[in-house]
Amino acid sequence: MTRIHQQSLSFGTRGRGFTEISGEVAGVARSAGIAMGLCHVFLRHTSASVCITENAAPAVRVDLERWMGDAVPDGDPRFEHDEEGPDDMPAHVRNLLGGHELTIPVRDGRLALGTWQGIYLWEHRRQGQRRELVVTVLGA
Amino acid sequence: MTRIHQQSLSFGTRGRGFTEISGEVAGVARSAGIAMGLCHVFLRHTSASVCITENAAPAVRVDLERWMGDAVPDGDPRFEHDEEGPDDMPAHVRNLLGGHELTIPVRDGRLALGTWQGIYLWEHRRQGQRRELVVTVLGA
Amino acid sequence: MTRIHQQSLSFGTRGRGFTEISGEVAGVARSAGIAMGLCHVFLRHTSASVCITENAAPAVRVDLERWMGDAVPDGDPRFEHDEEGPDDMPAHVRNLLGGHELTIPVRDGRLALGTWQGIYLWEHRRQGQRRELVVTVLGA
Repeated sequence: MTRIHQQSLSFGTRGRGFTEISGEVAGVARSAGIAMGLCHVFLRHTSASVCITENAAPAVRVDLERWMGDAVPDGDPRFEHDEEGPDDMPAHVRNLLGGHELTIPVRDGRLALGTWQGIYLWEHRRQGQRRELVVTVLGA
Repeated sequence: MTRIHQQSLSFGTRGRGFTEISGEVAGVARSAGIAMGLCHVFLRHTSASVCITENAAPAVRVDLERWMGDAVPDGDPRFEHDEEGPDDMPAHVRNLLGGHELTIPVRDGRLALGTWQGIYLWEHRRQGQRRELVVTVLGA
Repeated sequence: MTRIHQQSLSFGTRGRGFTEISGEVAGVARSAGIAMGLCHVFLRHTSASVCITENAAPAVRVDLERWMGDAVPDGDPRFEHDEEGPDDMPAHVRNLLGGHELTIPVRDGRLALGTWQGIYLWEHRRQGQRRELVVTVLGA
């Protein structure tokens, strides 16, 4: 018998940077009461990302931020769209590159993440924002 | 009771640029007749993208195109693969960066996109192409 | 009647580069015994990618590797995280850009890949690694 469970999660970010949300997503997956299936995480915004990256060394997130800041600089004069400031358009490019959704297998009732994989909400705007995610779990 | 619905969509592009396909994808999701679940959109090509980005200011798509054009320039002499012209290999890199698939939650029978999220077919070749997508909807 | 099938795949890579795994993934999809649905492929690592790209000209993979090597150079002095060597942090950035999961529609019992689409495991570390994937197939 297949089950479907869907739930919204909301987070307040404190400006550009990573917030680990592995525990919150795992909680939704558990509450779905399935042994095997998929857990989908969807961010309803175009200026932040939801991604998986290394969860051990904090320097990894520092370096990801640095790489992205150089690849897509704030205030880049090539960008026409700056209605909300110098980080407006860069946030949309970062959203494209960093992604805005994840699907994670559920195995034995738990997220089958690798040992070093953590789930992160990555805020791309300089100011804190309220971010809504929709988590959908399908399985049996 | 779980339902699955699958349908192909075909679009003719007019060369490099964005075509909004939110309405077409939403139509397939609706016709699946589910209240809750997932809608998966898959592009069967390696030289275009399917992505979500801001749907309000057209300048966002202009700037995405500009950023991508500088990051992956046509005719880049580093590229060996140019059988179909100077935009051949850049289109494959753009496909990798921009993505070729989306999964969107269905909630209350509708795509649970954020207010500013639009679904776009992003042509990376200079000439128009026929592009086929497979949309699969699972849910209850 | 909806079916779910889940299976792990393990590959030994020989250092940086692409390994085609289309056949292995297609085999799992077939063994799920569904006619229509989705096949999800998840890599449990943060320093390699699973992606789809052109499967005909080998030069495409050579050029993807070259583009990535220039965009995210090994030994980049901007990176703080280098515990496992000059390719440690670049592998994490490459993982973000290249992706670590795929969802592919199943149609008529087979993966509905386009003619030129191949599934690749892309090793980003210089040394060979053992890589585990979880493949989940849902459908009817």
